[in-house]
Amino acid sequence: MTQNSAAETEYRIERDTMGEVKVPAHALYRAQTQRAVENFPISGRTLERAHIEALARVKKAAALANQELGVLDGELAEAIAGAAEKVASGELDEHFPVDVFQTGSGTSSNMNTNEVLATLANQALQEKGSDKEVHPNDHVNASQSSNDVFPTSVHVAATGALINDLKPALAYLAEALEAKAAEFADVVKSGRTHLMDATPVTLGQEFAGYAAQVRYGIERIESSLPRVAEVPLGGTAVGTGINTPLGFAEKAIAHLAEDTGLPLTEARDHFEAQANRDGLVEASGQLRNIAYSLIKINNDLRWMGSGPNTGLGEIAIPDLQPGSSIMPGKVNPVICESAIQVCAQVIGNDTTVALSSTNGAFELNVGIPVMAANLLESIRLLKNTSYVMADKMISGLTANEDRCAFLAGASPSVVTPLNKHIGYEAAAEIAKHAVKNKVTVREAVVELGYLERGELTEAQLDEALDVKSMTQPG
Amino acid sequence: MTQNSAAETEYRIERDTMGEVKVPAHALYRAQTQRAVENFPISGRTLERAHIEALARVKKAAALANQELGVLDGELAEAIAGAAEKVASGELDEHFPVDVFQTGSGTSSNMNTNEVLATLANQALQEKGSDKEVHPNDHVNASQSSNDVFPTSVHVAATGALINDLKPALAYLAEALEAKAAEFADVVKSGRTHLMDATPVTLGQEFAGYAAQVRYGIERIESSLPRVAEVPLGGTAVGTGINTPLGFAEKAIAHLAEDTGLPLTEARDHFEAQANRDGLVEASGQLRNIAYSLIKINNDLRWMGSGPNTGLGEIAIPDLQPGSSIMPGKVNPVICESAIQVCAQVIGNDTTVALSSTNGAFELNVGIPVMAANLLESIRLLKNTSYVMADKMISGLTANEDRCAFLAGASPSVVTPLNKHIGYEAAAEIAKHAVKNKVTVREAVVELGYLERGELTEAQLDEALDVKSMTQPG
Amino acid sequence: MTQNSAAETEYRIERDTMGEVKVPAHALYRAQTQRAVENFPISGRTLERAHIEALARVKKAAALANQELGVLDGELAEAIAGAAEKVASGELDEHFPVDVFQTGSGTSSNMNTNEVLATLANQALQEKGSDKEVHPNDHVNASQSSNDVFPTSVHVAATGALINDLKPALAYLAEALEAKAAEFADVVKSGRTHLMDATPVTLGQEFAGYAAQVRYGIERIESSLPRVAEVPLGGTAVGTGINTPLGFAEKAIAHLAEDTGLPLTEARDHFEAQANRDGLVEASGQLRNIAYSLIKINNDLRWMGSGPNTGLGEIAIPDLQPGSSIMPGKVNPVICESAIQVCAQVIGNDTTVALSSTNGAFELNVGIPVMAANLLESIRLLKNTSYVMADKMISGLTANEDRCAFLAGASPSVVTPLNKHIGYEAAAEIAKHAVKNKVTVREAVVELGYLERGELTEAQLDEALDVKSMTQPG
Amino acid sequence: MTQNSAAETEYRIERDTMGEVKVPAHALYRAQTQRAVENFPISGRTLERAHIEALARVKKAAALANQELGVLDGELAEAIAGAAEKVASGELDEHFPVDVFQTGSGTSSNMNTNEVLATLANQALQEKGSDKEVHPNDHVNASQSSNDVFPTSVHVAATGALINDLKPALAYLAEALEAKAAEFADVVKSGRTHLMDATPVTLGQEFAGYAAQVRYGIERIESSLPRVAEVPLGGTAVGTGINTPLGFAEKAIAHLAEDTGLPLTEARDHFEAQANRDGLVEASGQLRNIAYSLIKINNDLRWMGSGPNTGLGEIAIPDLQPGSSIMPGKVNPVICESAIQVCAQVIGNDTTVALSSTNGAFELNVGIPVMAANLLESIRLLKNTSYVMADKMISGLTANEDRCAFLAGASPSVVTPLNKHIGYEAAAEIAKHAVKNKVTVREAVVELGYLERGELTEAQLDEALDVKSMTQPG
Repeated sequence: MTQNSAAETEYRIERDTMGEVKVPAHALYRAQTQRAVENFPISGRTLERAHIEALARVKKAAALANQELGVLDGELAEAIAGAAEKVASGELDEHFPVDVFQTGSGTSSNMNTNEVLATLANQALQEKGSDKEVHPNDHVNASQSSNDVFPTSVHVAATGALINDLKPALAYLAEALEAKAAEFADVVKSGRTHLMDATPVTLGQEFAGYAAQVRYGIERIESSLPRVAEVPLGGTAVGTGINTPLGFAEKAIAHLAEDTGLPLTEARDHFEAQANRDGLVEASGQLRNIAYSLIKINNDLRWMGSGPNTGLGEIAIPDLQPGSSIMPGKVNPVICESAIQVCAQVIGNDTTVALSSTNGAFELNVGIPVMAANLLESIRLLKNTSYVMADKMISGLTANEDRCAFLAGASPSVVTPLNKHIGYEAAAEIAKHAVKNKVTVREAVVELGYLERGELTEAQLDEALDVKSMTQPG
Repeated sequence: MTQNSAAETEYRIERDTMGEVKVPAHALYRAQTQRAVENFPISGRTLERAHIEALARVKKAAALANQELGVLDGELAEAIAGAAEKVASGELDEHFPVDVFQTGSGTSSNMNTNEVLATLANQALQEKGSDKEVHPNDHVNASQSSNDVFPTSVHVAATGALINDLKPALAYLAEALEAKAAEFADVVKSGRTHLMDATPVTLGQEFAGYAAQVRYGIERIESSLPRVAEVPLGGTAVGTGINTPLGFAEKAIAHLAEDTGLPLTEARDHFEAQANRDGLVEASGQLRNIAYSLIKINNDLRWMGSGPNTGLGEIAIPDLQPGSSIMPGKVNPVICESAIQVCAQVIGNDTTVALSSTNGAFELNVGIPVMAANLLESIRLLKNTSYVMADKMISGLTANEDRCAFLAGASPSVVTPLNKHIGYEAAAEIAKHAVKNKVTVREAVVELGYLERGELTEAQLDEALDVKSMTQPG
Repeated sequence: MTQNSAAETEYRIERDTMGEVKVPAHALYRAQTQRAVENFPISGRTLERAHIEALARVKKAAALANQELGVLDGELAEAIAGAAEKVASGELDEHFPVDVFQTGSGTSSNMNTNEVLATLANQALQEKGSDKEVHPNDHVNASQSSNDVFPTSVHVAATGALINDLKPALAYLAEALEAKAAEFADVVKSGRTHLMDATPVTLGQEFAGYAAQVRYGIERIESSLPRVAEVPLGGTAVGTGINTPLGFAEKAIAHLAEDTGLPLTEARDHFEAQANRDGLVEASGQLRNIAYSLIKINNDLRWMGSGPNTGLGEIAIPDLQPGSSIMPGKVNPVICESAIQVCAQVIGNDTTVALSSTNGAFELNVGIPVMAANLLESIRLLKNTSYVMADKMISGLTANEDRCAFLAGASPSVVTPLNKHIGYEAAAEIAKHAVKNKVTVREAVVELGYLERGELTEAQLDEALDVKSMTQPG
Repeated sequence: MTQNSAAETEYRIERDTMGEVKVPAHALYRAQTQRAVENFPISGRTLERAHIEALARVKKAAALANQELGVLDGELAEAIAGAAEKVASGELDEHFPVDVFQTGSGTSSNMNTNEVLATLANQALQEKGSDKEVHPNDHVNASQSSNDVFPTSVHVAATGALINDLKPALAYLAEALEAKAAEFADVVKSGRTHLMDATPVTLGQEFAGYAAQVRYGIERIESSLPRVAEVPLGGTAVGTGINTPLGFAEKAIAHLAEDTGLPLTEARDHFEAQANRDGLVEASGQLRNIAYSLIKINNDLRWMGSGPNTGLGEIAIPDLQPGSSIMPGKVNPVICESAIQVCAQVIGNDTTVALSSTNGAFELNVGIPVMAANLLESIRLLKNTSYVMADKMISGLTANEDRCAFLAGASPSVVTPLNKHIGYEAAAEIAKHAVKNKVTVREAVVELGYLERGELTEAQLDEALDVKSMTQPG
């Protein structure tokens, strides 16, 4: 008998419109979630945390709007909203077991949310002695469809993560780079174009350029927000708003915007908003852009730090861990490499997001869960790598000033300011002479008789060959 | 002897800092262009027309600024500016033979421009009896480097093509779709989600959604313009502005903006602006977005027009050409297919543009010519396909209204408005009954006894099952 | 005081060449693993299971070869091999906490393995009373470097997963499709090209085509194996084999091949093999190909099953779960959608893998961990989705034979066999007449007088219009 | 009147099943080609040369098979075959004006071929006094459909270009690299992993690795050929072979294989073969792989050649053209940059090809022309860049042997062979001491007392620190 009771408590029977399903006894979810768990044993990957929170907040906003519009009884609405807050907090994520690779509309996750909230709401109603009962479809999902709720939740999660997570992380990274730009403002070094010796720059100019690049990334995010922050809520099944009371979209989105503190707006065209996920593709494209920016920055830093003895050796990257299991004492630019790999992932995720556009037909795109998972993962990865880059690498960088100065002077391109005195062709002759004979440009000028012949004065030469003054116009 | 003289006139000898080169006798270009022609026998593809024009306009703007700042004699500057106008007009494109797959900085094309302009300017000076001579580097290229000029020319060409070519084309397409949205405003049809029967929409709503999607594409272009229209001119070799007089960037860009009528601005950070081409990647990403939008629209149209007898058959797409070499009388949605292939090309071009970001190192990206060619081609293709779609397909579309109405009524999802009367679960039972027994939802309601039992009144049923009213909230 | 002692027991101090590190008291790993955990708080994603097993098996093979070549004492080698078996089994995966986004060589994971194996080996030695001690670098890593071990482990894991997991899964899917091809061999239906009505095919022919496509995927995997199964082991730090005894590569790889049962071979060129991961890119490219194949199959199935009343309705896809939270009774092709999303992920992962090629420079690619994670995930996802497709969808498909037959006859392209009697142009006239007047092709033939004029006999017409005979040549 | 006659001769009237069309008077093509020219004013890009030739050869093979099977009169067949040879030769390419971005089946180009061949055949028949007439559909296209002919032509063109163009070009490149590998066999240099100083390699080993990588590219092409060389000819409209005599596919493909000298085979499953273009995607994926290989090689070469004074300076890349319009005397690795841009194009083209898979539905993929154009362009670009790389760069490379030797000795990783004498940890201490104090590893060994303490002998040290012996095992 005790054996039986043990078995009895492991599962309970739930029903939906297709019939009975065995559900784990303690699960807050019900039949449809369980079906989805069984139908999609694919990846083991579930919705991102931010996504579950967003789903819960959409449900809360809908409940409040439904109450105001007379669709939902106040007690039910309050119970649903309270349940949504619990789910939003993150403490119940284990009750969201549905795989990312599920139905393309996210209906399984929407129903997962509806079921968990109904269970929680009913528990709360029961506790306070009410005999009312919340139904997952008729109440939690009232005035909604997966087809507007689920994409809304993705846009809410993405908007939140972009504004609250990624933008501050990029700003933090930009500040770290700007601090180094200031620190390195007077470190003159050789510029490089085509990887070949060019005219001098300061290390500070390079870092300011990196910082600018990161800040442009922030601008790119901002420029996409008007379309990412537009949500389809209120369109229900196909964009028409069938089964919503008049005014629902406006009220629900107002609640959602207030609850999340995000600049959410109602879709200007609900058919565009449900049939396509172009706003997500756009956001993902901007993340791709940021990823390529970070690849450039990390590649430059790796090369500047290459050596210690056979590379460029212009900066020193902080030592974080032994670099080789066989070569003793070796240390590598591991944060750069980690970051570049993050960027490769973000760029691949972007392919997944963009390609999923082709899964749209008529009133629905059926690639939303995979788009959401990839977009939100990319934001999370870029956020984390920005902080790690700033804290574990950028902030600890030091310049090898002597090496930089030596190389700046060694570049044959320091001949460039002589153009205005003797013309490009004569200057080219000097540069070639210097390289061929392994002498400095100054020595080449002398050897080729420019001073002797009076074509250049010592003063002109001094002024022209001042590497620091070559780092600015005029 | 005449044979010899024929041979003698075919080539002439030109010199650069590397020595002598045989150049076609009538070519306006000189030694460096010829070297590039010989070094890069790769694709047979040369710069886009808009790109050559932009290069010329940059040279003109630089000449004017150089004159104002005392770098160039007025007569020389005027000759250069006049030559630039000729090249800008397009009549001399044959003198720009350098392959796209050239040096990554575009130096060969910059020098091609310098050489052609020097030749033309000298011809003009000679004609007016001047004995002054314009040098490609010392005069045409004064205060410039390939490293700021060439990317500037790409941004100018792209900005111009986006504003003057693509935006109007997309607007034209959107208008064509909007006209159809108005025309089809009352054509009720079945919605489809997951490709399965859903609640009704109007054909007009679908077309309005397509138009909105296209208009969002215009917004996307606009949102990228602040960064695409920023130009690195004035940074010269490495971003420092070496060999420019103070004020050059500002003056030259002002001339360029005035001459082109484009909202060009100076790079906020000249190091970011020369080391990276992120603005081009961003623009390309937005084109990718537009391409995915057009794929969706064309796919929907193809499916709606599928048949005539075995498909959906909701609309008729204009007949343009026989569709099959074997199946007589067949006609296919060829404009949709052409457009989708354009989109595939644009998406591939975008991969090329974005990947080329990885060719940046230190002060220069060395993938600029291929980025330019792909970006500008994509703009051109999207422009042309937008007009072709509008004129040869959208404007001629007609609705098969009877078919649409029939299918709208046949969808079991018209049961949806009954949710509020009898709940989701009972409604599901009705829908399943209708499908299983091949009866209408109304018949199912009757057969299952809802009227008999008084759970629904005839009036409620009539109101609930009105397909037109299902196409809006409330 | 008890509080303190609790805290004291939570961590222990470990040392590496950089100094002391606090490590969780019960962790089998040591200082370098812990450094990596702290350095890379990026994704929370760790190595794939198959990857950890492969790392362990490489270590075992190396230990055995080292013993045979006199590099390692037999007792130590045995202890390491025994430890490797434990790790290979999967029971200790929690001791492999290093993030995927780590150092690009995978040194952290190699050292993680070295440390865990050293700890386990020492435990075993201690248990049997030996006073010998295994050092992570000097013994577990003897004759090895991360630069040959880590990529070897990826190739081993990939080869194993391709041969043992994905090939059988695809074969299983192909068999399911072939079973349906046989079942549907006589179901005649309309072909569709350009989505438009074409000449008839059998449903069985379509399914046989799908099966062939899947079997070609298996061929594609096989064709890449010669290069995926080549491993760099023995090249150590840079491909030269420094610090290996003569014969090590051969012996170690022979052990590895035997232990895993895989057709592993030694890299034909150890420099190619360590500097690049082209073999992984190739394998990933073949997975991409398979993904695109599965997209096509699932799209076709979704469209054939579209409806039930407003779509093509040629087949019925098994009902697995309620399809809509708002539209009662709706059921969707969710397995198709899940599979298509898997494919989008695989295609995105492939971008990540391929792009990571650009992280190679000189003797090492530094994008290996992210390549490994994406490639192995893709194999796992494709395997799982193949089984799910077969079991939950393909095997349960049924044909709507009447609908298929009706549509086959309705296609105006059944006019095609008349070409040989009356020519393409006359046949086109008939087809157009049929479509325009909504009559059958047979009726059109009659109405246009072909029988009357004796241009066709009844017998010819009967034979020509037999849809079944149109599904084969002759 | 003369004005009129001038106008009259410019166009002639042609007819097809849709009615009359004005066609340029001297055009060999007819109505359907002209319609396509007017319908697709998209890119200005027409079929690749190899593609037109392949189309012609398919027509010739079909004509011969039709004759043998009694479908075509011998005189007609001969006339068609003769016409096909003319088109194959390339002299009539101007009569193939249809844009790449046309109907997705390539029907317009198939009909273009049918029309041109009909015109040419009729001219020939007329010349020899025959009164027979060839019809584009009924004769030139007999037993064929665009749906089998056009993809067959792509596979034929691709197979030919891979075997006859790209494989020899890659072999040529590999040989150039192998020649340098032999030349540089004794040039010892520092290895680099993570861009950081590693143990020594020879420059020859690196070049042999590059050559191996290129040869693997050849293997990759070969491994894809079995599926690229499979052609759908004989399947006609939908794969069933409708309207073909028994035996047509076999005979026609045999003729085609003989005529082209290519290992063409008949599709094992004609439904797979017409519904999908997976073989092209696979081939394109292998080109992508080759492109990534070439990127690695060119990046390494660029970096090895960087300088002359501020970079690695290990090799000298031939000077081909002045590198800068502003920096006199600068020379850049322009062939590397050209090649890398080619690779970016090939990788983007591959995206286009692969994505076009999603344009398959039921019996036809409607993205074939764009797939063909991109695949064939990629082969052409890779071929050309391989020869240019070999001839203009690789063959002229020289090693800076002194620089290489100096850097090899300067790398702190030369400490690695000491591991076996003193263990990894002690060796790490030595390496760190050397770097920190800017002394050699030998000096560090002495300074740290290893000789003094007798932990190492002079002989051991000499043997251990011999950089040449570090470039091999043992």
